[in-house]
Amino acid sequence: MRNVVVTGCPRADLGEVDALAGFGVATVHEAMGRTGYLGPGIRPIHLGARIGGTAVTVVCWPGDNLMIHAAVEQCRPGDIVVVTTTSPSADGAFGELLATALQHRGVRGLVTTGGVRDVAELHAMSFPVFCAAVSAQGTVKATAGAVNTAVSIGGQRIVPGDAIVADDDGVVVVPRQAVSATLAAAKARAGKENESREAFRRGELGLDRYGLRAVLAGLGVKYVDYESYREVDQ
Amino acid sequence: MRNVVVTGCPRADLGEVDALAGFGVATVHEAMGRTGYLGPGIRPIHLGARIGGTAVTVVCWPGDNLMIHAAVEQCRPGDIVVVTTTSPSADGAFGELLATALQHRGVRGLVTTGGVRDVAELHAMSFPVFCAAVSAQGTVKATAGAVNTAVSIGGQRIVPGDAIVADDDGVVVVPRQAVSATLAAAKARAGKENESREAFRRGELGLDRYGLRAVLAGLGVKYVDYESYREVDQ
Amino acid sequence: MRNVVVTGCPRADLGEVDALAGFGVATVHEAMGRTGYLGPGIRPIHLGARIGGTAVTVVCWPGDNLMIHAAVEQCRPGDIVVVTTTSPSADGAFGELLATALQHRGVRGLVTTGGVRDVAELHAMSFPVFCAAVSAQGTVKATAGAVNTAVSIGGQRIVPGDAIVADDDGVVVVPRQAVSATLAAAKARAGKENESREAFRRGELGLDRYGLRAVLAGLGVKYVDYESYREVDQ
Amino acid sequence: MRNVVVTGCPRADLGEVDALAGFGVATVHEAMGRTGYLGPGIRPIHLGARIGGTAVTVVCWPGDNLMIHAAVEQCRPGDIVVVTTTSPSADGAFGELLATALQHRGVRGLVTTGGVRDVAELHAMSFPVFCAAVSAQGTVKATAGAVNTAVSIGGQRIVPGDAIVADDDGVVVVPRQAVSATLAAAKARAGKENESREAFRRGELGLDRYGLRAVLAGLGVKYVDYESYREVDQ
Amino acid sequence: MRNVVVTGCPRADLGEVDALAGFGVATVHEAMGRTGYLGPGIRPIHLGARIGGTAVTVVCWPGDNLMIHAAVEQCRPGDIVVVTTTSPSADGAFGELLATALQHRGVRGLVTTGGVRDVAELHAMSFPVFCAAVSAQGTVKATAGAVNTAVSIGGQRIVPGDAIVADDDGVVVVPRQAVSATLAAAKARAGKENESREAFRRGELGLDRYGLRAVLAGLGVKYVDYESYREVDQ
Amino acid sequence: MRNVVVTGCPRADLGEVDALAGFGVATVHEAMGRTGYLGPGIRPIHLGARIGGTAVTVVCWPGDNLMIHAAVEQCRPGDIVVVTTTSPSADGAFGELLATALQHRGVRGLVTTGGVRDVAELHAMSFPVFCAAVSAQGTVKATAGAVNTAVSIGGQRIVPGDAIVADDDGVVVVPRQAVSATLAAAKARAGKENESREAFRRGELGLDRYGLRAVLAGLGVKYVDYESYREVDQ
Repeated sequence: MRNVVVTGCPRADLGEVDALAGFGVATVHEAMGRTGYLGPGIRPIHLGARIGGTAVTVVCWPGDNLMIHAAVEQCRPGDIVVVTTTSPSADGAFGELLATALQHRGVRGLVTTGGVRDVAELHAMSFPVFCAAVSAQGTVKATAGAVNTAVSIGGQRIVPGDAIVADDDGVVVVPRQAVSATLAAAKARAGKENESREAFRRGELGLDRYGLRAVLAGLGVKYVDYESYREVDQ
Repeated sequence: MRNVVVTGCPRADLGEVDALAGFGVATVHEAMGRTGYLGPGIRPIHLGARIGGTAVTVVCWPGDNLMIHAAVEQCRPGDIVVVTTTSPSADGAFGELLATALQHRGVRGLVTTGGVRDVAELHAMSFPVFCAAVSAQGTVKATAGAVNTAVSIGGQRIVPGDAIVADDDGVVVVPRQAVSATLAAAKARAGKENESREAFRRGELGLDRYGLRAVLAGLGVKYVDYESYREVDQ
Repeated sequence: MRNVVVTGCPRADLGEVDALAGFGVATVHEAMGRTGYLGPGIRPIHLGARIGGTAVTVVCWPGDNLMIHAAVEQCRPGDIVVVTTTSPSADGAFGELLATALQHRGVRGLVTTGGVRDVAELHAMSFPVFCAAVSAQGTVKATAGAVNTAVSIGGQRIVPGDAIVADDDGVVVVPRQAVSATLAAAKARAGKENESREAFRRGELGLDRYGLRAVLAGLGVKYVDYESYREVDQ
Repeated sequence: MRNVVVTGCPRADLGEVDALAGFGVATVHEAMGRTGYLGPGIRPIHLGARIGGTAVTVVCWPGDNLMIHAAVEQCRPGDIVVVTTTSPSADGAFGELLATALQHRGVRGLVTTGGVRDVAELHAMSFPVFCAAVSAQGTVKATAGAVNTAVSIGGQRIVPGDAIVADDDGVVVVPRQAVSATLAAAKARAGKENESREAFRRGELGLDRYGLRAVLAGLGVKYVDYESYREVDQ
Repeated sequence: MRNVVVTGCPRADLGEVDALAGFGVATVHEAMGRTGYLGPGIRPIHLGARIGGTAVTVVCWPGDNLMIHAAVEQCRPGDIVVVTTTSPSADGAFGELLATALQHRGVRGLVTTGGVRDVAELHAMSFPVFCAAVSAQGTVKATAGAVNTAVSIGGQRIVPGDAIVADDDGVVVVPRQAVSATLAAAKARAGKENESREAFRRGELGLDRYGLRAVLAGLGVKYVDYESYREVDQ
Repeated sequence: MRNVVVTGCPRADLGEVDALAGFGVATVHEAMGRTGYLGPGIRPIHLGARIGGTAVTVVCWPGDNLMIHAAVEQCRPGDIVVVTTTSPSADGAFGELLATALQHRGVRGLVTTGGVRDVAELHAMSFPVFCAAVSAQGTVKATAGAVNTAVSIGGQRIVPGDAIVADDDGVVVVPRQAVSATLAAAKARAGKENESREAFRRGELGLDRYGLRAVLAGLGVKYVDYESYREVDQ
């Protein structure tokens, strides 16, 4: 890792990002061909928020939040700060003071593979946080890292300026260059989901709607009456 | 595992199941002699629900929700769908579309050793879910499994038609044949607990109420004054 | 471990403990020089509480809550019961009946490295619980342990009578002898934090406020424009 | 759980079990249609053993090994003792003294979801152990459990007398009634594997041998030259 | 935590420590009344060693090994270095260069709640290491910690100069003041174990030797013949 | 993820990769500025191997090894196959048959975030494997993935053709373009380490060699004699 702060990164179009966020994490993930999800380990500290924004990335040393301070200056309205550490660390590298600084700059939330603290205060100030841990453990400001370099979380690559969508289902990243296409795909998918929802409300079965009876038959799944079924090998 | 969908399974009596559910998970687990609890790994996605129902079981391949679709057709009012996978998988195999289909059939909730998504939507539609993970990661419909075969979760065997009770404490299974006896035992236990609660509110001690002073003495536990106690060996 | 119940332990001054609790877990932890935090594994079962009190400690055998019953008798108003087990155990060793007994004695909450049950009931009775697990699994009363001996949780030593502060960020312990000094340090820190919060609201940067530009330069962190940066080694 | 010691359980035919063990865990698991595997969490304490035998099952309370002592008496030559606990426990409930008693009775090894100790001594006496943890933590003999009742480990049901095969890949259970059929299937599979091994040694590809090129094409997998591939959406 | 290096700590008598080590971790832990075990999470990187020595303790910041360097100077022949971090860290804070420095001073091994690297080289130089993780991830030397202050690992307090015994079963600490008494208890226990081992080799049962038939009967455990047992509630 | 098999990927120079491998994982990781390490979760199934090679990457669906079969055809002598899954999966997607096919093509080993089986056979055929799990659980060949696309493991990006070095410390990746520079840096570092090793053998301290006394003083670390130190705040 080069110890740099990269400035002037281009961002995904915020209008498109906002439209994308409206579809929620699960639909956006599907619209990308089931990629971009940062994994089940990153959770909201409070349920109920749904945000979209453009990534400002931060790499910190474990137990150290120096580079989050460096990142604040690079933030613009509409950004979401995305923090990772060079090795796993649950320490509370982020709290309400940093959130205050970010809110002043129009930042919409924080995503981190590490820990946060001041959970009650963050809730009171309506600053959404998605993280791997809550920890009051404090950090130092002693070791270098990077701001706005590409990072990987949950096997997904995040480049500064990429679109981030986060809600109760977790966090998804959409590459900046793919935002327009993903938005179109999300709209199409949402339309299909609306139709399916209506059908399911009326009692149609996924077995029929998705043609799954043939799939089951092709895989050799048998229908057996309870009386004739005996669990001999279970 | 035989790849089957077992049809026409008998269910526990729904009236008894409803009565059982009123006692909550912890009391039902105690009434069964401290068995049937599916373990601390399965949690509600939102606190505050308490449901009872009859089990429709599903075994899926990891990353695959084909058999949940097959299970929908087997569901009746009062059922709770219980999903497990052939190996651990946190993927979001269940979401609001499947919940819509299940609600149409009168299903009361979902229990899964895997993951779910559309957490906000599931809450909005008041469909209780108890799961091991939340994940937006999508699944395929490509590999066979089973519906309504016996499964084991947390070391507890669940046979289709067994009673399921779930609340903020997790999930407990009561074998169909044991529902009546467990209901009687739960009533008896709840009565005793009411008496104990009253006694504790008045200031009686469990030490006295449960005869534990003799137990402590028998085990050699000594009462030592702070001044005379020295932690020589700690 | 000696199997003892130590009686008559001195407590930290409850007025000072109450004042300390007002600052919250993160600030108290910082005021102690970043020590005393019991770790991210102990979480509130419901968000929103902030409590302080004096520790009554309990050591239980796994799957056994005999010593919690013994501890009730040792509790006074203002206490917080702190439970640990001789080896990790998620079993639900604590529930609403024990909470009822503790509330009668003026106990303010429970901290445990183990599990609790009756989550809905504990919430209804406003008894704050901080724990490592929720589990309906019941326990026995068969094996000896200790009450009011020193214990260690998350690498932090807790001596009976120490101050405990717990909120949405977790749990911190302050040694009885250090409460006054920590209270003074917490006040000083909170004052500084208020000033920083105001500055951040006005748009000042931590980089400037904490003199971090020099730190970054000293560590060799370079500012590089996006156009000239190429991720050759990433 | 009823607190019982079930006596006189029938066992799988030891000659067939021995033949089955020769194929190893992975092949036996495949021969059963990919069932019976107790999961990756149960590992040998030393690599290099491969054993087969008939299950004597034990259910212990966490931190308690009373029922293992009760199980010793029920063991016959060719048995493998299979231990689980009512809730997860890593304590060292088994060591070289119990192994000495079991070896006297012709028991071939131990499988446990819990912990063991005396690792060096167990190796010196050539007693194979497959477990979830190594722990020196001692246990008591104070709480009831069961011997030779059906248990579930890793979602697999183990009935007393079932065949157990264990090696460096872990542990698999074969229901007593299924041993003959599984043995035949394992032989058939091993024959096929021998042919595949020879083919692969000569350079044949699985793509051709298993007809996977058509599968890839049917799934839409494209072959793209490095020069023309651009990771636009990654 | 005060940032100090405490010098001139008294050590447990090395002759007694050596005698104690001969009994192994499990027996020493039992001889202390089942305390002192650092838990199943700390494992040898290679099986087969059994060491004893006197503790030099180190507290490091995560991702930082500065204080291990400070600790080297405080080491004497017969010491074992015991490292912990202020929050969990798997980074490879220790490797063969530090081991070389420690071997020069007569140090017998390393125990750490963190990570180590150079596993092959440590084995080649016969320096026993007991750790929670292996990781090549490097560390910095930027943040203060402590040498020779009391630390807690796995709930057990370790004071500098305490006796440490480590083998394939993990690590146990014996307080300096308790070494003589523990040595006597270990001898007594080993004698009893020898007798039990002989008895078990002859076929005596623990049920008889330890009087457990009465315990089982007292707990209500029934002996049931296989033919008459039906698992109605399992 | 696009479902592709990318062909004709350029590789790092095998002579340089071999030279790099000679330095081992920890030194290579340091030579890259402490990057490239895939994390402590990927471990050798047998200690004692040290390999280098060029990456052929594979992305599989959980519970599915179709794409590993597709990857075999893309392998050349000197390659190391690097497997990851779209969501975590411990299933045994790789065993001795696939290893046989890979050995025929001159592949030097396997790295996977998933599971492997046939551990004994893999050892017998001297095929080094570095993995997150051992599991006999079988997989299907039903869902698409990718071969030779960029993947991320442990936050590190691996592009096909990059250098992989693996030994008892785990696995490190070196970007193809950075191999020459990393080799030079590794040589320089190894030279310095040789000098330090000699110095430490003679008894020099890291405190002096690395100038750490000044660092400790600058951080306010105090040396305190045991007699005058009192742990008032611990």
